[in-house]
Amino acid sequence: MEQKGILIVVSGFAGTGKGTLMKELLQRHPEQYALSVSMTTRSPRPGEQEGVEYFFTDTEAFEREIEAGGLIEYACYCDHYYGTPRAYVNRQLSAGKDVILEIEVQGALQVKEKFPNTVLLFVVPPSAQTLYDRLKGRGTESGEVIAARMKRALEECAYIPQYDYILINDELSVCVEQMHHIIQSEKFAAVRNAAFIENIYCDLRNLSV
Amino acid sequence: MEQKGILIVVSGFAGTGKGTLMKELLQRHPEQYALSVSMTTRSPRPGEQEGVEYFFTDTEAFEREIEAGGLIEYACYCDHYYGTPRAYVNRQLSAGKDVILEIEVQGALQVKEKFPNTVLLFVVPPSAQTLYDRLKGRGTESGEVIAARMKRALEECAYIPQYDYILINDELSVCVEQMHHIIQSEKFAAVRNAAFIENIYCDLRNLSV
Repeated sequence: MEQKGILIVVSGFAGTGKGTLMKELLQRHPEQYALSVSMTTRSPRPGEQEGVEYFFTDTEAFEREIEAGGLIEYACYCDHYYGTPRAYVNRQLSAGKDVILEIEVQGALQVKEKFPNTVLLFVVPPSAQTLYDRLKGRGTESGEVIAARMKRALEECAYIPQYDYILINDELSVCVEQMHHIIQSEKFAAVRNAAFIENIYCDLRNLSV
Repeated sequence: MEQKGILIVVSGFAGTGKGTLMKELLQRHPEQYALSVSMTTRSPRPGEQEGVEYFFTDTEAFEREIEAGGLIEYACYCDHYYGTPRAYVNRQLSAGKDVILEIEVQGALQVKEKFPNTVLLFVVPPSAQTLYDRLKGRGTESGEVIAARMKRALEECAYIPQYDYILINDELSVCVEQMHHIIQSEKFAAVRNAAFIENIYCDLRNLSV
């Protein structure tokens, strides 16, 4: 069996509770997973800490990082850059941790193209109505913002068939365990175990002579 | 989420304990799984019952079944026909059960070609040496039979990369749960949930207007 960790991308409509889901997964299985911290040029929101939610930087520094090949993926979203620093991801994978990137659809597909064994998960609400209700229920967004989020969700729908799995975030606790099982099951994919299969083949041949 | 059951094919070298694995899976999750019973032209071994291990038949009747399209797959293995009756499988899938076919590599690939969403699992021993020891340990097989089984295993190795997952049968209890998680995780594959995604899309569009 492959001992190295695997790369997982989690995307999903705004308002489906991806953040809470990930926090819960890491709390339950701290030895198993590492959450990648993205770099962004957008300003910190109240309460966001450098190196926790994001590494905050400016456009010039971000573009230098792109040039230097220091990002696994990056995308421009709502006029700001977002990207995944390569070094941290590699370090965690080598240590056997499964690394989760919470990124939007453009970045997700870039990662899959570069690393075809990445597992792409898309978090969906149980229904469109639930999403609408959740966005409204937050009470912090204007009608305009809610409309923009719904429109964005509609656009993102087109990308879901390129994902490997959907995760329906109805009950948090159930969804977290499903996510864990999906990721751990992926480790048994034949495509990830070519070396193990090759070994068995060689040993069988030696024993058969 | 798709409510219909999914089709699973389990193959593996002789001596890896596929039979015990399947029996245990069905015992633990009797509501979830149904094991397909194959039809064969080979003679019953001591203790084998009609309709339990196999449906036993003769070559003429088997070939009539092929003609009539009554088999999902069939193969000739060690001079005998083996095949999967279609009607039983369809009935169980419609009832929401996940149907497991325990068949060899030729048949497995036929099923995957006809039904691309089939999940192919290949059971391997933890090592080639373990397989050899298990075959010898049975004490019922001649050296010649053991050599033939090892040679067959070597040939089957070439097909493993066409399977979706490998299952390492080291500790039965662990392996059974892994198998269960792999199959249940597959239900969240985006490719199986096209209708759900389409529904969310339509509802989002209606809510966004």
